[in-house]
Amino acid sequence: DFVEALRAVVGAPNVSTATAVREQHGHDESMHPCAPPDVVVWPQAVGQVQELAALCHRCRVPMVPFGTGTGLEGGVNAVQGGVCFDLSRMDAIAELSLEDFSVTVEPGVTRKALNKHLRGTGLWFPVDPGADASLCGMAATGASGTNAVRYGTMRPNVLNLRVVLPDGRLLHTAGPGRQPRKRAAGYDLTSLFVGSEGTLGFLTQATLRLHPLPEATAVTIASFPSVGAAVACTVQVLQAAVPVARIEFLDEVMADACSRFSGMGLPVAATLLLELHGSQRSLAEQQQQTEEIVRQNGGSGLAWAEGQEEREQLWSMRHNAWYAALALRPGCQGYSTDVCVPISRLPEVVVETKQDLQASNITGPMVGHVGDGNFHCILIFNSQDPEEAQRIHAFTQRLGRRALAAGGTCTGEHGVGLGKRALLQEELGPEGLDTLRSIKAALDPHNLMNPGKVL
Amino acid sequence: DFVEALRAVVGAPNVSTATAVREQHGHDESMHPCAPPDVVVWPQAVGQVQELAALCHRCRVPMVPFGTGTGLEGGVNAVQGGVCFDLSRMDAIAELSLEDFSVTVEPGVTRKALNKHLRGTGLWFPVDPGADASLCGMAATGASGTNAVRYGTMRPNVLNLRVVLPDGRLLHTAGPGRQPRKRAAGYDLTSLFVGSEGTLGFLTQATLRLHPLPEATAVTIASFPSVGAAVACTVQVLQAAVPVARIEFLDEVMADACSRFSGMGLPVAATLLLELHGSQRSLAEQQQQTEEIVRQNGGSGLAWAEGQEEREQLWSMRHNAWYAALALRPGCQGYSTDVCVPISRLPEVVVETKQDLQASNITGPMVGHVGDGNFHCILIFNSQDPEEAQRIHAFTQRLGRRALAAGGTCTGEHGVGLGKRALLQEELGPEGLDTLRSIKAALDPHNLMNPGKVL
Repeated sequence: DFVEALRAVVGAPNVSTATAVREQHGHDESMHPCAPPDVVVWPQAVGQVQELAALCHRCRVPMVPFGTGTGLEGGVNAVQGGVCFDLSRMDAIAELSLEDFSVTVEPGVTRKALNKHLRGTGLWFPVDPGADASLCGMAATGASGTNAVRYGTMRPNVLNLRVVLPDGRLLHTAGPGRQPRKRAAGYDLTSLFVGSEGTLGFLTQATLRLHPLPEATAVTIASFPSVGAAVACTVQVLQAAVPVARIEFLDEVMADACSRFSGMGLPVAATLLLELHGSQRSLAEQQQQTEEIVRQNGGSGLAWAEGQEEREQLWSMRHNAWYAALALRPGCQGYSTDVCVPISRLPEVVVETKQDLQASNITGPMVGHVGDGNFHCILIFNSQDPEEAQRIHAFTQRLGRRALAAGGTCTGEHGVGLGKRALLQEELGPEGLDTLRSIKAALDPHNLMNPGKVL
Repeated sequence: DFVEALRAVVGAPNVSTATAVREQHGHDESMHPCAPPDVVVWPQAVGQVQELAALCHRCRVPMVPFGTGTGLEGGVNAVQGGVCFDLSRMDAIAELSLEDFSVTVEPGVTRKALNKHLRGTGLWFPVDPGADASLCGMAATGASGTNAVRYGTMRPNVLNLRVVLPDGRLLHTAGPGRQPRKRAAGYDLTSLFVGSEGTLGFLTQATLRLHPLPEATAVTIASFPSVGAAVACTVQVLQAAVPVARIEFLDEVMADACSRFSGMGLPVAATLLLELHGSQRSLAEQQQQTEEIVRQNGGSGLAWAEGQEEREQLWSMRHNAWYAALALRPGCQGYSTDVCVPISRLPEVVVETKQDLQASNITGPMVGHVGDGNFHCILIFNSQDPEEAQRIHAFTQRLGRRALAAGGTCTGEHGVGLGKRALLQEELGPEGLDTLRSIKAALDPHNLMNPGKVL
């Protein structure tokens, strides 16, 4: 039968129909209910992915790619069943070129594993969504995170992708073995597959752009009298062409939660966490410019952490924001919203959203990649309480629409997945959605790749 | 009849079938023979573009978008006749937002017109392909140029595009009125239309990212003992994380030609032209780092131009490279090749190409955006001599294949147009080209948009 045919391709130990395994692969870190696949397979090589895909294609069985399961929008939930392709055992790091600032990784390689591999080379891969996600998974979801304001999101940092198409054919989005830093050779297939959320094919290898490690790094944290002041400070830092590496916003609720969770003693105020990269000398100048702008906007409490341990302490406070938020209501679940708006509209959108949270009686501290206009409300709620779950849903819809009305997007970096399909329609309009659907139908005519997601 | 119907949409003065006008619109600055459209129309508003497109669509008439005609690969040649849409009279600059670093332009706005408009705002649009091209045309061809090493190509600098689809419907690639700095909301339609060379629709408006003007700028020129030394210097500058704004290579033939054309007295040697942007203080540090690296690689002749006039003199020498090359053989025609390779492969590719030029008895001085691995041979030849034209064609094919063999692309920034379709097949392989064709067929099923180009 079909499962036997899968076993014939990858060997019996690499196929599982056990309930526990299927359930483990049927959901990510989102609030969507688990939807287990019928089978989980662990291919060991790209040829096996091709054979498995061709088999599923012939039998018209849905296929769901799986990396680390750290997505936030239900991207791996097998809502129509089918075969989950767990690609974590394909984990080669190949073709590191220090002169070209490039490396090629398979789907089992996470961003931390890559940066560990790069130690001592003077290069690093800066995109950091928080979780230790698979780099191919980050490409699939168009991930970004704290460093994007300086180093960009995944899209400009992917040079080529090796894709297994739904029928098992192999596509190299920039051509086989190619990695020029720029190209104008036909439609940009690389950018099309980045952010396609597994709906167009399997990303089985990514060639990435690396960046030189900064000679020196400094981190500071400052408290502001208002959200508006913190955002004005951000705009002025960018206008002054300070090449800020990270500029993260925490609202007063989140600053307080993080402070208590990490035992830091921060003021209960709108807060910015800033990181600067550069040579020793340029860093001193960036610090001085930043300090001036912070003070002009009423910011205070500024102190620079330059040693690695001190810096890591500050960032671990930020990276623990999720847990600090969960600690506000023990036993409850969390869900992170993800709107992104033009920065000029950010203060009003943040202030209105805070009023909405209060009026809706929802606990939802905010963190944001404020240099990009992207912020998250970490909504803490009792998912067992249908009334509360409904209230949370209604709030996320209002927030999405508020961002759209401000010229923004319903998702800056988490993707559409299962939950934002309705908002995506409003965001793109009928012509936009028709265009997405035409592309999907052209590349996956039987709708076998991660069906039910995005569109 | 059909022409009457076009007149009914845009008014008789905005429709022309005069031979001189048609011939003027039937070719760009490439070496492809003129292929005039049957009619030229000048729509004045997006609604007219939609009506005209719908009309052509109903009658199955080919459509060719036209901006400034400064393309280099025959993108505007109406090889199947039809209607040329000259969009130069739609030239509004709207929605400049200094806080958001963004602006929206219509197709008649050129990059110089935009930067003039931005004077005094502290912002600028850095992408500079040389010609004073239309910004929508630059988006259509995926242009880049000298500043791309620091500020990127067109792709990361376009936030949204208003597209008239082949049937006249209006698509906003990031949704109507939206301009977040990043988004993860469905397939990246903006990146798909950037570089589509008019084959998927008309770009009737582009929302662009602006950048803060640097406080200070310095330019220098240095001579090197070999191509390898100049490239090694480039790699080391990038590895040292010097945020170089422009790093341009001239081979000894081009350096000599430019020197004579501009009366500069440069050594006949592999040459780098470097531009640095920053604050006064950071500039001093960048200059010092750059000088050290230049000297370590045997570079000499270094002197910094910091005043605007001096800097412009150096850049006008570089921007006149085309005319300096043409002056090597008066009365002849020029054609610019455009390969781009991983930078580690650049020295061997450049050296082999120089040997090939010599063995083929072709005059072809080189300039290159060496920080990106992109270089041009400006081939000077007598297009009236069929033997020579054939020799030139054979050379460009060998050069394209040499770049492909080195993991590069046949076109870094000029596009595929008419002349590189065969090389594109080799670059992408059958699965890649099939994928392009599927997308084209999905979005332009009757092949009416700029037929005969790219694929």
